[in-house]
Amino acid sequence: MKSKLPEVGTTVFSVMSALAAETGAVNLGQGFPDFNCDPLLIDAVTLAMQEGHNQYPPMAGVPALRSAISTKIQQLYGHLYDADHEITVTAGATQAIMSILLACVHPGDEVIVIEPAYDSYVPAIKLAGGVPVFVSMQLGANGYSIDWDQLAAAISPKTRLLLLNSPHNPTGFVLQESDIAALTRIVQHTQLLIASDEVYEHMVFDGQRHESLARYPELAARSYIISSFGKTYHVTGWKVGFVAAPRALMTEFRKVHQFNVFTVNTPMQLGLARYMAAPQPYLELADFYQKKRDKFRAGLENSRFKLLPTHGTYFQCVDYSAISQKSESEFAQWLTREIGVAAIPVSAFYHQGHESGIVRFCFAKQDATLENALQRLQAI
Amino acid sequence: MKSKLPEVGTTVFSVMSALAAETGAVNLGQGFPDFNCDPLLIDAVTLAMQEGHNQYPPMAGVPALRSAISTKIQQLYGHLYDADHEITVTAGATQAIMSILLACVHPGDEVIVIEPAYDSYVPAIKLAGGVPVFVSMQLGANGYSIDWDQLAAAISPKTRLLLLNSPHNPTGFVLQESDIAALTRIVQHTQLLIASDEVYEHMVFDGQRHESLARYPELAARSYIISSFGKTYHVTGWKVGFVAAPRALMTEFRKVHQFNVFTVNTPMQLGLARYMAAPQPYLELADFYQKKRDKFRAGLENSRFKLLPTHGTYFQCVDYSAISQKSESEFAQWLTREIGVAAIPVSAFYHQGHESGIVRFCFAKQDATLENALQRLQAI
Ligand SMILES: CSCCC(=O)C(=O)O
Ligand SMILES: CSCCC(=O)C(=O)O
Repeated sequence: MKSKLPEVGTTVFSVMSALAAETGAVNLGQGFPDFNCDPLLIDAVTLAMQEGHNQYPPMAGVPALRSAISTKIQQLYGHLYDADHEITVTAGATQAIMSILLACVHPGDEVIVIEPAYDSYVPAIKLAGGVPVFVSMQLGANGYSIDWDQLAAAISPKTRLLLLNSPHNPTGFVLQESDIAALTRIVQHTQLLIASDEVYEHMVFDGQRHESLARYPELAARSYIISSFGKTYHVTGWKVGFVAAPRALMTEFRKVHQFNVFTVNTPMQLGLARYMAAPQPYLELADFYQKKRDKFRAGLENSRFKLLPTHGTYFQCVDYSAISQKSESEFAQWLTREIGVAAIPVSAFYHQGHESGIVRFCFAKQDATLENALQRLQAI
Repeated sequence: MKSKLPEVGTTVFSVMSALAAETGAVNLGQGFPDFNCDPLLIDAVTLAMQEGHNQYPPMAGVPALRSAISTKIQQLYGHLYDADHEITVTAGATQAIMSILLACVHPGDEVIVIEPAYDSYVPAIKLAGGVPVFVSMQLGANGYSIDWDQLAAAISPKTRLLLLNSPHNPTGFVLQESDIAALTRIVQHTQLLIASDEVYEHMVFDGQRHESLARYPELAARSYIISSFGKTYHVTGWKVGFVAAPRALMTEFRKVHQFNVFTVNTPMQLGLARYMAAPQPYLELADFYQKKRDKFRAGLENSRFKLLPTHGTYFQCVDYSAISQKSESEFAQWLTREIGVAAIPVSAFYHQGHESGIVRFCFAKQDATLENALQRLQAI
């Protein structure tokens, strides 16, 4: 059978999690917390099941959850999305991205990808018949940044869509107002659509704010905004996310969504909706993860790793070039097997073996887990 | 924005369920039970959540669930699928079908669709870049059947895949051994792949057996077999299904699956696995639904509807041409609004307005619901 994705293997996150399990390493690879969610959220889902909410919900999602999402976006970012026509609940952010691409990208259309990029983006573009066009982030003294001139130069008459991600996985970069201004200038005379992956929206540190595209009407008018309950409520395994977009864009999205997954787990949706009816302390989530970031960074301060800045997400990238000349993939394997700490090679976020001597750790872990990992990493 | 699916609206199942809710009609349209699942299954999911199984499972699914699926298929159909490499848990059967098509169909490839066909098939083929080729079922005195000569004639050098569905939605047709023989003859000298949608595998009536393609090694070797826990355990809203296929086919499937949804709800998967550890009375399920079929049919015996045979699924098709000359869609609307019983027009399962004066009812309902609907239908 001729492969549609000949260059693709198993996603690095699964590979490294399997290796961590096999070797008993502390798993700071794949991005997920090692602690449980709020028991009240579990109770809400259980109640929904017991009440009999176990059959198909409406295709676009449970109405109460769509309302809760709409209210949240309006409160945080000031933009009102109509819960009936402009919000759809998805089986996680990955499914949202695949469905957006299937809905928007016609064969031969170009899609701009800013590297390093989440590893589903490029295969999803290809499956949709599109052509990825790559723009590289720049790594400077203050961490990674986007070179907007390079991005502007990548736009052609064939460019259909730009994939954006802030807070950015794996680099911890977060969009600044100056980035928004540059982006606005670049797209204003184009038909470019934007898919804005904002799954780490509540993990922005040091008093900065999350520059959701929903804050900017000119950008929101051409954007699909994607987020995830998994990251926000510590339930990555529930696979519930959402997309918000203007009605015309959402109409096309739903045509695909309904034939891709049709709809999303009813009791999880209803449980989340009821849970969100109590005011949610999103700011505390930023504090919570900032403390973990600071603890993790403090632990590596005097190590042989060089810490790169992390302004958001629950990831910390480190430069290991003072320790080893191995490729990132080999170094991550070595770290897992020999040191007992799993990490993700940043090269996995590039379409071609881009090597810069950097790996990514996830610090969404209990303090004891972080301490255990730090001890091992400090000993190198 | 230029649509990828210009001819597509909202799926008829959602439209009719919304109309039923709005008008207060008895909803015999969309296929789902109006009773709850086994409380033990709910307890199993709750326990999984409380134990902290709320983060990403392995990409292909929770190992215990894949084992349970493998064991079940071997016990029922005699074919051993390797749980590690030949079974993948999906976000329902719809996602399985979309991902199979994305994995197998190259631009311009033809896919054979037997009409009437579930409404996701054709849009999914188109999104994958394929070309649907239609074969019509024949309606005779013993109900619907497949004309295998017509199917053989539809195969061209471009044909990549055949979409098969038995027990068949909406007609209640079930594959016979003679069909299997014809199918085997037709495909044996081709490279054709088969996607076999068997979500109603446990609902086959009158002592017949389900002719899973897993029973036939020659066919299984080229087939993706798709099923759904939603139909089997009365939890259509959980959106958990699975695919079984030989390793080479599964490798390609997983490449797409991992970038489409990545993985599927952890606590639901673990709950299902533990629940399946107790022997499951699949035969009782056939009995259970056969009684409902018989009750529903008995109720319409002396009505103005003409009952078509139903050998499997939880659907009953009826010919209403003695009652009305309306189009199927108009008749279904009229039934819902004026008579208070929602149904699905069978024309929704054809790519072009095929009208035969037939609508589909779902009898997966409590006896009281069926009685209520029957009273209204008898009064016409
Ligand atoms: C979908 S698995 C990976 C989770 C994640 O977002 C990451 O580790 O980058
Ligand atoms: C995915 S909604 C429809 C459920 C179903 O299988 C049907 O009604 O045919």
